[in-house]
Amino acid sequence: MATVGKVIKCQAAVAWEPNVPMVIEEIEVAPPQANEIRIKVIATGVCHTDLYHLFEGKNKEGFPAVLGHEGAGVFKPGENSQECRFCKCPKTNLCDQSWSSDRYAQMSDTTTRFSCRGQPILQFMGTSTFSEYTVLNQVAVAKIHDDAPLERVCLLGCGISTGYGAAINTAKVCPGSVCAVFGLGAVGLAAVMGCKNAGASRIIAVDINEQKFEKAKIFGATDFVNPKSHKKPISEVLAEMTNGGVDFSMECVGNGAVMRSALESCVKGWGVSVLVGWTDVQDFSARPIQLISGKTWKGSLFGGFKSKDSVPKLVLDYMAGRIMLDEFVTHTMSLDQVNDAVQLMKTGGCIRTIINLSK
Amino acid sequence: MATVGKVIKCQAAVAWEPNVPMVIEEIEVAPPQANEIRIKVIATGVCHTDLYHLFEGKNKEGFPAVLGHEGAGVFKPGENSQECRFCKCPKTNLCDQSWSSDRYAQMSDTTTRFSCRGQPILQFMGTSTFSEYTVLNQVAVAKIHDDAPLERVCLLGCGISTGYGAAINTAKVCPGSVCAVFGLGAVGLAAVMGCKNAGASRIIAVDINEQKFEKAKIFGATDFVNPKSHKKPISEVLAEMTNGGVDFSMECVGNGAVMRSALESCVKGWGVSVLVGWTDVQDFSARPIQLISGKTWKGSLFGGFKSKDSVPKLVLDYMAGRIMLDEFVTHTMSLDQVNDAVQLMKTGGCIRTIINLSK
Repeated sequence: MATVGKVIKCQAAVAWEPNVPMVIEEIEVAPPQANEIRIKVIATGVCHTDLYHLFEGKNKEGFPAVLGHEGAGVFKPGENSQECRFCKCPKTNLCDQSWSSDRYAQMSDTTTRFSCRGQPILQFMGTSTFSEYTVLNQVAVAKIHDDAPLERVCLLGCGISTGYGAAINTAKVCPGSVCAVFGLGAVGLAAVMGCKNAGASRIIAVDINEQKFEKAKIFGATDFVNPKSHKKPISEVLAEMTNGGVDFSMECVGNGAVMRSALESCVKGWGVSVLVGWTDVQDFSARPIQLISGKTWKGSLFGGFKSKDSVPKLVLDYMAGRIMLDEFVTHTMSLDQVNDAVQLMKTGGCIRTIINLSK
Repeated sequence: MATVGKVIKCQAAVAWEPNVPMVIEEIEVAPPQANEIRIKVIATGVCHTDLYHLFEGKNKEGFPAVLGHEGAGVFKPGENSQECRFCKCPKTNLCDQSWSSDRYAQMSDTTTRFSCRGQPILQFMGTSTFSEYTVLNQVAVAKIHDDAPLERVCLLGCGISTGYGAAINTAKVCPGSVCAVFGLGAVGLAAVMGCKNAGASRIIAVDINEQKFEKAKIFGATDFVNPKSHKKPISEVLAEMTNGGVDFSMECVGNGAVMRSALESCVKGWGVSVLVGWTDVQDFSARPIQLISGKTWKGSLFGGFKSKDSVPKLVLDYMAGRIMLDEFVTHTMSLDQVNDAVQLMKTGGCIRTIINLSK
């Protein structure tokens, strides 16, 4: 390519500081270094983790930055990474290179490949897909089928895989089981889809926004509960509906109180509750008897999928009709509408908005 | 027997009210009703759950009562109980008849078989072994080998099974794994024994009382850590010792802060932490990332053993030398020394005291 080894100038949404709208800027994208890949981004979802960083988080990765992390694009494949002890273990999808407890890996070193008007611009979650071009450490890149529609499969880069995998990999929902999913955003709806594909006999969709129930039905939910319509704690409502509690519950909100309710809604003896929603600004808690009575509390990142191996398979699952993606997409916008997409998500007005950068 | 169908008068330790010593009294023990068995108690351990009820608990089961629940005795076997949905499930050892979230089953109805000077005396945890005779719902009785030494195998009625099973059944400690056990009372030492029998390569014993370390070594501990000897949080100390954290941790104290430390001491990706110590007066809590990074938080009652099936097998394990019991016993006393036994336990001066009622 004519751009190999050269700086590329392109449009990107720059988050100059927290709590203010992003600004579309011309940025400079440096060439990839060793173990890195420069990608032309074709489509990206807008995920709550972007909002979390922009509005709610502790800002571990800093500003200014280009956000966005649920992307699909075009690149020239490179080498495989050295595999770490986590990569080699079938019990986890963590990787020493792509995520540590403090921060997502940036590039192969701790610098950034972005700059704008001479100022370095940080990358976000090792990706930064709110940009026409980005550079990734290749541990964060998965090669998918050439014919995959990028404006749909970009969603497999975060939210859908996270919810779907939480049900099938982390909870290990089994045929005939009774499930409850708390929170019906894209992650929660994907968890509903996971419960359905795993053969659950009953999937109780829980949200305080009843407008989400119709969509949840499409993904397989069989029962619908609005906690605000009940005076009793939601765990008691679910216990009455299910002879003592559900076999599996998934918290897809990222709220400590909901995490507690989700655990309390499980049946004693064998109930499993999974933390799927992300927050790191508050503790979750419960009474010890909740676990001592035989329940299990788990969680996962990215649904427990090892991304390089699993995303290509999930893309094939979508192309073969085994999982839904189209049904998550409520809006498609251009990069310069990115702040509108963020507002839509903040107000619960969308499931997923796709930013199309292909022009 | 000459006493069939008749009231038996015998000695028992009556806890008239919380926070004061028990009193040795002559009590009347009524004949067993349907599905009940009257037992001559030969030996009983003194367990922290007795203290918990007497000094710390919320007193769900009330006073006056005869405490004690870790007993062995002699009885004439009766019928088997109807099995509930929990009994039929291999994933749990709960039973609708023997334990609900509010209270342990008393007799086949909610009355008691004990009285003293005309006043009803409550039973405790469906057992009440601080008495020469007691009456049990037969769901709480296990028939063991005729030659079993009762002044040792009584310990399998609670603490030792609880800790041992937490390691082998609940955590499912696997060969070559690295374990940490927090709290080196009888339950914690039994957890150490479970880790050793499951093939752990390294068992880190954690206690603020270093006098327990020598005993822990006998049960298989390989490393010893006193959190008070370190300025860093114990989880950081263990992470440094183990390249990022232990595979399995067991909390055998019953303290919310220690539960948190035990989870935080696990390695991300696959670490499993088990609540074994009992408390219901405080929450346990953690940051969500602890679970979202792939750790699992579990718990069990009575080590996950289905008691009627498993206690007879554990008795055989002891008789064949596969598990230790003698090493837990530091004191043997008579019933009228029961308050001394309680004080010894409160001050950490014993591992297990056996009350011998056989005279």
